[in-house]
Amino acid sequence: MYKIGILGSTGYVGAELSRILSQHKKVELKFLDSRSYVDKKYSQVYPSLKKIVDNKCISADLNRDLEEIDLLFCALPHALSQMAVKNSLEKGKKVVDISADFRIKNPLAYEKWYNTKHEALDELSEAVYGLTEIYANEIKKARLVANPGCYPTSILLPLYPLLKEQMIISDLIIIDSKSGVSGAGRAATDTNVFGQCNENAKAYGIGSHRHIPEIEQELSIAAGKDIMVQFTPHLIPMTRGILSTIYIDNDKNLKDDDIRNILNDYYDNCKFIRILNEDEYPQTKAVYGSNYCDIGFKIDNRTNKIIIVSAIDNLVKGAAGQAIQNMNLMLGFDEREGLEQAPMWP
Amino acid sequence: MYKIGILGSTGYVGAELSRILSQHKKVELKFLDSRSYVDKKYSQVYPSLKKIVDNKCISADLNRDLEEIDLLFCALPHALSQMAVKNSLEKGKKVVDISADFRIKNPLAYEKWYNTKHEALDELSEAVYGLTEIYANEIKKARLVANPGCYPTSILLPLYPLLKEQMIISDLIIIDSKSGVSGAGRAATDTNVFGQCNENAKAYGIGSHRHIPEIEQELSIAAGKDIMVQFTPHLIPMTRGILSTIYIDNDKNLKDDDIRNILNDYYDNCKFIRILNEDEYPQTKAVYGSNYCDIGFKIDNRTNKIIIVSAIDNLVKGAAGQAIQNMNLMLGFDEREGLEQAPMWP
Amino acid sequence: MYKIGILGSTGYVGAELSRILSQHKKVELKFLDSRSYVDKKYSQVYPSLKKIVDNKCISADLNRDLEEIDLLFCALPHALSQMAVKNSLEKGKKVVDISADFRIKNPLAYEKWYNTKHEALDELSEAVYGLTEIYANEIKKARLVANPGCYPTSILLPLYPLLKEQMIISDLIIIDSKSGVSGAGRAATDTNVFGQCNENAKAYGIGSHRHIPEIEQELSIAAGKDIMVQFTPHLIPMTRGILSTIYIDNDKNLKDDDIRNILNDYYDNCKFIRILNEDEYPQTKAVYGSNYCDIGFKIDNRTNKIIIVSAIDNLVKGAAGQAIQNMNLMLGFDEREGLEQAPMWP
Amino acid sequence: MYKIGILGSTGYVGAELSRILSQHKKVELKFLDSRSYVDKKYSQVYPSLKKIVDNKCISADLNRDLEEIDLLFCALPHALSQMAVKNSLEKGKKVVDISADFRIKNPLAYEKWYNTKHEALDELSEAVYGLTEIYANEIKKARLVANPGCYPTSILLPLYPLLKEQMIISDLIIIDSKSGVSGAGRAATDTNVFGQCNENAKAYGIGSHRHIPEIEQELSIAAGKDIMVQFTPHLIPMTRGILSTIYIDNDKNLKDDDIRNILNDYYDNCKFIRILNEDEYPQTKAVYGSNYCDIGFKIDNRTNKIIIVSAIDNLVKGAAGQAIQNMNLMLGFDEREGLEQAPMWP
Repeated sequence: MYKIGILGSTGYVGAELSRILSQHKKVELKFLDSRSYVDKKYSQVYPSLKKIVDNKCISADLNRDLEEIDLLFCALPHALSQMAVKNSLEKGKKVVDISADFRIKNPLAYEKWYNTKHEALDELSEAVYGLTEIYANEIKKARLVANPGCYPTSILLPLYPLLKEQMIISDLIIIDSKSGVSGAGRAATDTNVFGQCNENAKAYGIGSHRHIPEIEQELSIAAGKDIMVQFTPHLIPMTRGILSTIYIDNDKNLKDDDIRNILNDYYDNCKFIRILNEDEYPQTKAVYGSNYCDIGFKIDNRTNKIIIVSAIDNLVKGAAGQAIQNMNLMLGFDEREGLEQAPMWP
Repeated sequence: MYKIGILGSTGYVGAELSRILSQHKKVELKFLDSRSYVDKKYSQVYPSLKKIVDNKCISADLNRDLEEIDLLFCALPHALSQMAVKNSLEKGKKVVDISADFRIKNPLAYEKWYNTKHEALDELSEAVYGLTEIYANEIKKARLVANPGCYPTSILLPLYPLLKEQMIISDLIIIDSKSGVSGAGRAATDTNVFGQCNENAKAYGIGSHRHIPEIEQELSIAAGKDIMVQFTPHLIPMTRGILSTIYIDNDKNLKDDDIRNILNDYYDNCKFIRILNEDEYPQTKAVYGSNYCDIGFKIDNRTNKIIIVSAIDNLVKGAAGQAIQNMNLMLGFDEREGLEQAPMWP
Repeated sequence: MYKIGILGSTGYVGAELSRILSQHKKVELKFLDSRSYVDKKYSQVYPSLKKIVDNKCISADLNRDLEEIDLLFCALPHALSQMAVKNSLEKGKKVVDISADFRIKNPLAYEKWYNTKHEALDELSEAVYGLTEIYANEIKKARLVANPGCYPTSILLPLYPLLKEQMIISDLIIIDSKSGVSGAGRAATDTNVFGQCNENAKAYGIGSHRHIPEIEQELSIAAGKDIMVQFTPHLIPMTRGILSTIYIDNDKNLKDDDIRNILNDYYDNCKFIRILNEDEYPQTKAVYGSNYCDIGFKIDNRTNKIIIVSAIDNLVKGAAGQAIQNMNLMLGFDEREGLEQAPMWP
Repeated sequence: MYKIGILGSTGYVGAELSRILSQHKKVELKFLDSRSYVDKKYSQVYPSLKKIVDNKCISADLNRDLEEIDLLFCALPHALSQMAVKNSLEKGKKVVDISADFRIKNPLAYEKWYNTKHEALDELSEAVYGLTEIYANEIKKARLVANPGCYPTSILLPLYPLLKEQMIISDLIIIDSKSGVSGAGRAATDTNVFGQCNENAKAYGIGSHRHIPEIEQELSIAAGKDIMVQFTPHLIPMTRGILSTIYIDNDKNLKDDDIRNILNDYYDNCKFIRILNEDEYPQTKAVYGSNYCDIGFKIDNRTNKIIIVSAIDNLVKGAAGQAIQNMNLMLGFDEREGLEQAPMWP
């Protein structure tokens, strides 16, 4: 049994890591770090995990506690992750970092979008971007994986193959994403209180959301040229799920099969990616609680546009699930280990 | 007191007409027609209206029942509306038709998108499209108003002035709309059952929704040239509300004020249109249960796009409320009569 | 036009007072007091009220600001209300207090359940309990009305007549209430955050909720003897609404008509109380956004129990609506003024 | 690998059986019977199960298809189950019946509450009531298990031990249950359509719900005397979950520990039953998607009542999960096999 620690374990991502790892056959949770709940049982914070994860939360001392583990999940807020990750790597531990700190390869871009300097540049340059299906080979050898953001995961999985294969000429892509409220985190704020969110839909951060540089970086790598996105996130009244609707100029007059073949080529052996049939479109319920990403698309001949729709569970494939999928590769397991739970419907 | 009849009164639009008209000071409900609930009290169908609308539903005989009224709301399904509207006009009654039958001015386009022939061509050519704020003068004189669809209302109100004033050069506009489930109507189907809709978001009818010809017709009229839309409707887990996010190329390098001034020029005297301040975006809760349409926008200098967001209550400004606003003009009342109810929050 | 002020106006009850009063023909809002939003437009706090209530929030100075008004709504937290109400009465202003401070007539009981001493005993003894339909005559003459709690309103309206008419022998009544989340207020907490409340139902404060002494006080007055309640509130995933299910021993072997006749006697002239027919039961949607209280009941001959169900909108009849109904009586208006808005369905 | 068939597999219970069994290591799905979806892939009916359960639905021929399996889940509507179960037993197959047909031991009571004659009396007398934790020994040896109803499961698990140990004297118990909408099944009706259920709470079937004889039968067996229940089910706006609040006279002046000790005695070795600590109460989210039943309680000294609250996922412990738990015992597996998935939060 490999041993695992989680820094910042009492947010929603930590809860989801704990939930999934409790079913994992090859690792065990060694410590759950928390600032707010030290000495409280984890199951008092998340009553769902009573008799399942009853560990007491600790305030981790990296010098002491890293000794006990093989791999660290770092679920701290951005900026705070940098030093914790640096320390862990120096102690020879593998790390999956779930913050944004090691996703943006250009430190100036990081500084501009996150309003903070990057203090761990060596580690940044070493980090592998953890979009599992795309970077599996690099992830297997990585010491540090930067786990992707939730929106980017839903956007990059369908787009990466098409850009890589030069199917898209335009360098501007329009992306309209809808997210459940859990994406806003667990801490109560004016933004995520029930009376504000229920029976409400709204756009936010138009053209300024921090996932933009992450999306553009990876799309540009795929395309081999600079790609820009017009990205609009929306908050809609559900707990889990992201649905992304993507609008692309069909400058190459692609047919349905052109796209389908590429996606199938890339993903046929990927258990967690499902390409839907013609005239079927993803829905977030079809991936609820699971690590799947569903992808559907339509070529509109009237307008000569390609419309792609993707769906993930923002807390699983968009965060904790993909992090565990990455851990599986880093520790030499089958990528599906612990993640085979089928989506819940209804 | 003017007298009003409703054909097809027991769907959600009929219920909303009844709810709002019950507070209207200048009209009274004379008959509520229904196929399924003849002889049942309306308040048995909608218990919310007990002691408010206790009329018995009738199966209307147009020869007999039209005699008693001054204006008819026709809330029948499309195709069924044609003959009912024709008959009513022949008997000298004013009509607000809430189906799609009189919205599409080109009968061939109607036939193509709705798979049925149009049998009331004279009435079609006479009908005024009931987007109240835009066609108020025509509506005042109209005998027949074709009440706009819910999605088109949310889309045309922000776009019409900009196209009319030649602010937009591109002839293709991308529109991503999110609707509450009541838009799918009251009759129970696999599509609107709770277990399917709750905690779910999905796209549907990509590039093929029947509101497309209606939207394109009115945008083309405004622009004085053919405009095409890439329109994607989505179903999200809430009862009421439509949020439309619109993506436009900013080919004329417009500034915030350029757009703001035009919208203000058009809508300053329009009680039900609210232009939000910079960095404020519409949310459906802010218009819940009311006849308001909220409009906000952002010019993204990075991408040179204009992003417009609008919000309406699909059952009020998107259906029954706008129908009553049109009735008010047709009968010579203040357009706000009966519609001043403030939105509910939370 | 009478002039109105609201202390503590930016909570949900204040928002609902503002929403409803914006439609009231006989009063106008003179000031909106707030601690947190001084100098902000009210419509920036509640975007639903843009172009409707654009007053700037002030930090009220009672010496100065009371001069301008005829009646004060005090929506401060309990304990804070006491001095504000005392001052206002001393300045000759009428007050509707929406806190719990003047509901419990016995200051020792107040002290015990609310953990704070009562410092305005004269005013307490003068206060009229504002259950409008029951105490209308007293309210008309009152200077100070203590507006009932939301749960008590839903419970007392059906039970008061039956106890008053000695239909119930047992002195213990079981009450199981289900409330929407807005009852927990607007301030974000672990309890009302979306991720906690959505897709969740729970009981809380079993046998210890602060509405117990208020309910028992009024039931005991009605019965002319001490009545105890076993009261369990529950939080369920909706924004508005309270449904109370009440279990009573049918020791007098009452028939359906015995109960129906009494309720009809009491409430026939009460526009806002609706007694449902046999085999119809209240649902919160039927009163959504309105001042109605729906009451239904069943006599179970198998068990010899009476089961009563009632439904209100917790923010309207359970708070702001009833407060305005009381204001209407205190100022000599028809009790329905400003409150005739029909419930919304769906 | 044991082989399994499901009759009536396309309802919500069938979907949940399929979801859970897809993770079960010791059985495989051999056939999925459906009347409405013959020859359709199961994953076209439930897109969540694409690449997981892609079997084609068949219209089962019991003579042919039973040959292939070891155990049958019968998820047909009541009345229809009788003959299918009889046939299967005659062919020597083990059966878990999820309808109500074999739960009520007294055929006259069955006939009275279900309005249909019982035609499989021998099988009825053989059937073991499948409340797993209580009847585990009988279930292990059973050929036919009658899987309990969802409400009864939530009610019997906390009450059975207390009645068995003679802790309760009164022979009438009040039970107020709140259920998510999935309990009403998958078929779209006026009752479960989104516009009706969302933002709504209501009681139904007061004193007449068909789960009453089932609850009373088992409570009476436990107590060794006739027990009656006043049972009120409610529909609240969530997809999954039942919360039952139970009111009992504390005639024996029990203390917290008296009850706690008995529950612990009965359930300490039961992985799926969790007894909460003092002042903790169950919430449905804590058992979401899992086979757990959470139980909490409060002794109210003021009123001398015991209030018990329990929570289950109606589709798992209340249906498919318990059915699989029973299958596990019948086939000699650990009862937890396939059911260890932790509840989802949020």
